[in-house]
Amino acid sequence: MTTQTRQVPVDLGDRSYPIMIGQGLLERRDLFAPIIAGRSVAIVTNETVGPLYAGALRRTLSADAAQLIEIVLPDGEQHKHWQTLNKVFDALLDNRFDRKSVIVALGGGVVGDVAGFAAAVYQRGIDFIQVPTTLLAQVDSSVGGKTGINHPLGKNMVGAFHQPRLVLADVGCLQTLPPRELSAGLAEVIKHGAIADERYLGSVERTLPRLLARDADALSDAVARSCEIKAEVVAKDEREGGLRAILNFGHTFGHAIEAGLGYGEWLHGEAVGAGMVMAAQLSLRLGLLGDAQAGRLESTIQAAGLPVRGPAWPAQRYVELMSVDKKAERGTPKFVLLQGLGSACVQRAPDDAVVATLQACTQGGAL
Amino acid sequence: MTTQTRQVPVDLGDRSYPIMIGQGLLERRDLFAPIIAGRSVAIVTNETVGPLYAGALRRTLSADAAQLIEIVLPDGEQHKHWQTLNKVFDALLDNRFDRKSVIVALGGGVVGDVAGFAAAVYQRGIDFIQVPTTLLAQVDSSVGGKTGINHPLGKNMVGAFHQPRLVLADVGCLQTLPPRELSAGLAEVIKHGAIADERYLGSVERTLPRLLARDADALSDAVARSCEIKAEVVAKDEREGGLRAILNFGHTFGHAIEAGLGYGEWLHGEAVGAGMVMAAQLSLRLGLLGDAQAGRLESTIQAAGLPVRGPAWPAQRYVELMSVDKKAERGTPKFVLLQGLGSACVQRAPDDAVVATLQACTQGGAL
Repeated sequence: MTTQTRQVPVDLGDRSYPIMIGQGLLERRDLFAPIIAGRSVAIVTNETVGPLYAGALRRTLSADAAQLIEIVLPDGEQHKHWQTLNKVFDALLDNRFDRKSVIVALGGGVVGDVAGFAAAVYQRGIDFIQVPTTLLAQVDSSVGGKTGINHPLGKNMVGAFHQPRLVLADVGCLQTLPPRELSAGLAEVIKHGAIADERYLGSVERTLPRLLARDADALSDAVARSCEIKAEVVAKDEREGGLRAILNFGHTFGHAIEAGLGYGEWLHGEAVGAGMVMAAQLSLRLGLLGDAQAGRLESTIQAAGLPVRGPAWPAQRYVELMSVDKKAERGTPKFVLLQGLGSACVQRAPDDAVVATLQACTQGGAL
Repeated sequence: MTTQTRQVPVDLGDRSYPIMIGQGLLERRDLFAPIIAGRSVAIVTNETVGPLYAGALRRTLSADAAQLIEIVLPDGEQHKHWQTLNKVFDALLDNRFDRKSVIVALGGGVVGDVAGFAAAVYQRGIDFIQVPTTLLAQVDSSVGGKTGINHPLGKNMVGAFHQPRLVLADVGCLQTLPPRELSAGLAEVIKHGAIADERYLGSVERTLPRLLARDADALSDAVARSCEIKAEVVAKDEREGGLRAILNFGHTFGHAIEAGLGYGEWLHGEAVGAGMVMAAQLSLRLGLLGDAQAGRLESTIQAAGLPVRGPAWPAQRYVELMSVDKKAERGTPKFVLLQGLGSACVQRAPDDAVVATLQACTQGGAL
């Protein structure tokens, strides 16, 4: 049985683009050709993903591209910095890529962020196509146009909003994804249900076994619905003026965990898993969410193979880590909270509720 | 007699902004306050301009800014690279500047390009105000939103389109400008007349003595009309799809001179001066421009204190240098030509006409 190809439109005026979702899309010359025909194309990938999928992609693109090069970056968030970005510029300039050239990002979030930012600023902006190969990248970076690199003093501090021309999410690539990364991607899937669609959250709950077994149809459905939800939010708030903040559900706490442990210790999705439990508990304490609802969300997060407690630090350490988060305007963090499952809001919270939540939701704490 | 403040609107939809032109604008708290009030502000300047004007600007901004820092960059095009840009990021992050912060670029083109690019990509984009202190920056970088840095393999290869919120062109700052830089700025003034407004070209011709004597009214008029012309062109073609190319009149030849000599040997405006003579001569050879018109343009360029001949290289060297210019798609350069004075077009030219033009317009050649 072939998995049907799904299409999710991202509606951003003259920056609109489609996300195609399905199996075997890497081989679909018909999807790439309209954009790359007759142009210089650079596949930007990393040393882990490249050996697995760059060959197939090269075969698909070679007949239509005027020139085709491959740029292989080191793998890992610790390489998401200027020197890696500059490797892309070096290769593009060495090969005389002009303003009509196209970058195809083949890989996870780091490759997408770096390659997308390279496309955003190379000769003041060229086209790019995203081929996300992790579940996290398929459901998260596929929509929103966020690109960028880290600075020694902060994550994602340098970047741009630059929309791709096309996203191809081939769920076939998820077969080789390490189990921890599959779970980390599911954190964002659960998040989308929690903030915007209770029915979808229920469907994710029920299909978790099939998702964890990497069933192509179940994965395609989840990626498509997650992208739809994110696309709706982003279409209403492309430059992060307000609404888009709800996509940060679980992230204020999650970023504190990542920053405190040192980035890379926990995967982003793992930190978001524990962070969503914290945000749900804070919502509960503020009377916005019921006990059973918070419990149900936590069970789903746990069943997806994600941590549901943060590291055993004093609450004060979390508070300090959150106050330097870039979403905190002048040091006072706002929280994304749930008003029931499937609906989110953004607000400040009293210090004592935050502290009590942190004490309950860290390892060794009791709810 | 006080010079009246002139205002030129740059009409780019929700990215529109005004250019204010006049004398003593650095002291005009009323112009800055609406944008900077209550926000963190970084004055980005260089070691030459800073000691002259940063003090006055600091005094003007200090009462309204929530926090005010000064970032002093090294002076010169050779510092327009990543390391200098990173100095800006370091300072912004050290001082915990958030997404609501504002960068004020105080200086010439390099400061504007680097500070503007920093604003374009710091936390994916923050506001900036341009205070250009050279004539070139006032008439050229004030309009268009081009920002960026150089790469070892090419000039302006990394950058972004990022519109300022406000431009303040204080012609008082031109009093301290070295004479060569004043002339270099006049090259762009003459260019604007040549490509778009014969009457304005005539008025520049007549007022050259007052412009060279730095008369505030004459300078304000020229800056205002030049910005108007550039703004009209840019409003029709913000992202350089087509029309905007006419602003590169004299630049294809000029860039070849700059690249061949090594950037910084001639000032950009000097290279454009000789480049405009070449472009006019090529227009003449193609029957687009009259002999008297070409001669009149050359006299004006010369009277402005600019070179009217390129370095004495063989024509082939120019041709090679032009083929790597980034505006050359796949190696074949297009030229901006004059169809009479005050009107420009973009087209390819036969090789023999280009070679003959180069032979005539280099030092030692005869027209």
